[in-house]
Amino acid sequence: MTLFPLYLAICAVPAAAGILFKPGAWYREIDKPTWTPPNRLFPVIWAVLYVLMSLAAARVAALPGTQVAIGLWSLQIAISTLWSAVFFGLHRMLAGAVIIALLWLAVLATTLAFLSHDTVAAVMMVPYLFWGTFALALNLSVWRRNPEAVSA
Amino acid sequence: MTLFPLYLAICAVPAAAGILFKPGAWYREIDKPTWTPPNRLFPVIWAVLYVLMSLAAARVAALPGTQVAIGLWSLQIAISTLWSAVFFGLHRMLAGAVIIALLWLAVLATTLAFLSHDTVAAVMMVPYLFWGTFALALNLSVWRRNPEAVSA
Repeated sequence: MTLFPLYLAICAVPAAAGILFKPGAWYREIDKPTWTPPNRLFPVIWAVLYVLMSLAAARVAALPGTQVAIGLWSLQIAISTLWSAVFFGLHRMLAGAVIIALLWLAVLATTLAFLSHDTVAAVMMVPYLFWGTFALALNLSVWRRNPEAVSA
Repeated sequence: MTLFPLYLAICAVPAAAGILFKPGAWYREIDKPTWTPPNRLFPVIWAVLYVLMSLAAARVAALPGTQVAIGLWSLQIAISTLWSAVFFGLHRMLAGAVIIALLWLAVLATTLAFLSHDTVAAVMMVPYLFWGTFALALNLSVWRRNPEAVSA
């Protein structure tokens, strides 16, 4: 478990992206679906997901032959960092949806790769997979509801 | 070497950040030192660095007990993704300098960790370390030359 702090430190990078690229006036004013969660919920959900995904990665990395699984985990962290910046920084809702779809695929691939090494680690990734699905739906809905905005 | 394509795919994420957050009118107009390289040089340099760092990571990941070294590599990739967005997206030059300083430290830590497993891999990281030093100097210079810009 000595790897856990290192993975949590990597999660600090997308977390920093979330802090630097905040939902501001633009996000407040665009048309959002009724099922949009309140802003204050997002950091709480991400904090839980970061702890779970870091614990899962630390378990898997300790096992031999898990380089691909851990590589996929690194891929999803980098994509996650990019999403906040593109959606909240550039206000590009379609590009955001494409990035979050790639993120979802990377999280799915990570979870399946973890499953072949350690069931507990794969289970720890499941909340992230659900959240990714929800976030993709939210991003797509926001894109479709705001056709006049700078949304490409 | 089957891991090389996976690491190169991870490098596509900071590369995408560099494409989405381009140097635009803002960067053209701020005061830059005479030793600023032309814009067209940056993608070439990064392409070479991405190939080298992916080859290095693939070599190290194939060895046993290299989880921390590969974790540090993942950390630097995530930080690199964040930098383009903060500097070119938010125009925050000081925050950019802080992020690039953290990137430099992560690249140094990765190189030293690689050195303890595989000398060739460590040597492959050296150009990145030099480029990181130069990029930090350029970012700091730009920040000091533009005190009136939104530069925090």
